[in-house]
Amino acid sequence: MHSYTYLTQVISNIFLKMGCSNHDANTIAEILLKAELRDIPSHGVLRIKDYYLLWKEGKINTSPNISIVHETPGTAVLDADNAFGMIGAKRSMEIAIEKAYATGSGWVATRNSNHFGIAGYYAMMALEHDMIGLCVTNANPTVAPTFAVERMLGTNPVACAVPAGKEHNFVADFATTPIARGKIALAEKKGEKLPVGFVQDDKGYPSEDPSELRRGGSILPLGGDRVHGSHKGYCLSSIVDILSGVISGANFGPFVPPTVAYLPRKDKQVGKGTGHFFGALRIDAFMPGDEFKNRMDEWISIFRKGKPAEGHERIIIPGDPEREAEEEIMKRGIDLVPAVHDDLKTVAGELGVEFV
Amino acid sequence: MHSYTYLTQVISNIFLKMGCSNHDANTIAEILLKAELRDIPSHGVLRIKDYYLLWKEGKINTSPNISIVHETPGTAVLDADNAFGMIGAKRSMEIAIEKAYATGSGWVATRNSNHFGIAGYYAMMALEHDMIGLCVTNANPTVAPTFAVERMLGTNPVACAVPAGKEHNFVADFATTPIARGKIALAEKKGEKLPVGFVQDDKGYPSEDPSELRRGGSILPLGGDRVHGSHKGYCLSSIVDILSGVISGANFGPFVPPTVAYLPRKDKQVGKGTGHFFGALRIDAFMPGDEFKNRMDEWISIFRKGKPAEGHERIIIPGDPEREAEEEIMKRGIDLVPAVHDDLKTVAGELGVEFV
Repeated sequence: MHSYTYLTQVISNIFLKMGCSNHDANTIAEILLKAELRDIPSHGVLRIKDYYLLWKEGKINTSPNISIVHETPGTAVLDADNAFGMIGAKRSMEIAIEKAYATGSGWVATRNSNHFGIAGYYAMMALEHDMIGLCVTNANPTVAPTFAVERMLGTNPVACAVPAGKEHNFVADFATTPIARGKIALAEKKGEKLPVGFVQDDKGYPSEDPSELRRGGSILPLGGDRVHGSHKGYCLSSIVDILSGVISGANFGPFVPPTVAYLPRKDKQVGKGTGHFFGALRIDAFMPGDEFKNRMDEWISIFRKGKPAEGHERIIIPGDPEREAEEEIMKRGIDLVPAVHDDLKTVAGELGVEFV
Repeated sequence: MHSYTYLTQVISNIFLKMGCSNHDANTIAEILLKAELRDIPSHGVLRIKDYYLLWKEGKINTSPNISIVHETPGTAVLDADNAFGMIGAKRSMEIAIEKAYATGSGWVATRNSNHFGIAGYYAMMALEHDMIGLCVTNANPTVAPTFAVERMLGTNPVACAVPAGKEHNFVADFATTPIARGKIALAEKKGEKLPVGFVQDDKGYPSEDPSELRRGGSILPLGGDRVHGSHKGYCLSSIVDILSGVISGANFGPFVPPTVAYLPRKDKQVGKGTGHFFGALRIDAFMPGDEFKNRMDEWISIFRKGKPAEGHERIIIPGDPEREAEEEIMKRGIDLVPAVHDDLKTVAGELGVEFV
């Protein structure tokens, strides 16, 4: 068990040693630990080893020159210069917010970036400005479109944060697949079967075997199969990929680079790095902020008071579990699983950073 | 079998007789028939009887004074003055496109509207302007959030149209449920069972019985159950409801008015009518139009050439089936099922419109 403050310091020091600026190292530490606090450890400290290995292989630029390559009053394209994903992503969302102040909404497409942690972090940046925040990103291909067996899409998440008044803010942050890749890996380690509807084998037949992914199988889009609406998950994931990859000038579809060092990059590239897309909608560009917040409070309270199904206590408002986790884990401390703890110790050791 | 031109004339005349202007009657006919052409008859001529009954009960305003009630350079809120949904929706998308010319993107939230047909129609309006079009709408409640048994959300569709170059445009238009309500009604009429994951009973247990909806059951969000990611469908549907209903000043959640005359409206209202949300993103606000279209052609061609699963011929690009239907049905003519044909005849007869 480690305190948030202590881990922030250790992780910051690790990224400083890789050559990041003070500002960048703090940003990366903050966003990785935000995932730990919100109980999404698949996007937290676990990632540091892969980030480090990618950096060691010269695949990450820790002194990036981030630049706006195209813009209008309400839009921009940002080149993240192959920085760790958090750096370009946070800057992009800041620009989206600035542009929303000017025109009512701001939209930034980001290219030449890398894995950026939890999408929800960036969407939530809009909340303190009384804006709705949106963030999507493409990701390395693991998912087959409906009727396909080729891995052509990532788990391509969607995050949307909406400010409330007295109620807690609405924060949705979800992959466009039935399940995250990390949970499939966990089932494989435990020797457990998967429910039907998560993965298929290399011919496109449903499978319950989590090791399918290592034999040419693929993850299914949200919906699972065609009957249950997987074409809708495929549509949604495609929209995320087009906004993140096509309009930004990044890679898209099967060409999005892997987030781990041990997987080779494709020789063919259709753009630069990984792509993201960010949006900020100013509430008072539609109605006075207080009026909206009252309405949003009413929305939340109506849904919270909905009748639960038998065996369930309550209806969850998007963001509830993560916020509750954040309050608890901030008090209690962050408990890294042994493998992640050991990896962090190894990376810290190799870089000469103290971690006890 | 009727020609497109003939049905356009009949339907236009029907709405003229209800008091719509020439322009409005043509708009409604065009959008209803667009659904027929694109082989989405659940949103086509089938709806005319309900539209007529709602009008007869004084629940629709055929001489609306549509007004912008709030705006910034890139955003607006439009009050549709209780017009047939197509009227305010088309006007809203026109405004979104105008604003995108000015600021790079345009966003319009619409209140006091009604059922508007296929969401894809409005998203596709952006294509000829070299813009990405987005459209979502809330709808009368039939769907229970994850862990709930109360019908609190509609099938809340998402439509997104993206211009391509040599390839056909990308057009996604999908409900945020595994299946459309019309297909459940059809299964019930045929005495067929539903696959598990479409509906639940009034206690929240999975059911295969399509008549469940008439006994207090509800449709499940995309994903089906919690294990298969229904909380993600619930998140997506909630985002649609918040953008359509909360920020526009329309009704939201369980208070969205029914689209059929035989269902009572709730006494409590949390806003005005049904709500929609429209967006237009100018391509050249991000990169030159030709460059984008080349990239989009490449995206489409890469996905089209993906390896199909066993037993499947090809990977479908969103919009393919509807476009192919449109080409065929425009040539062949529109074939109304007997019940819809008879309803149209009845409505035409009552209004004194010739229909043979």
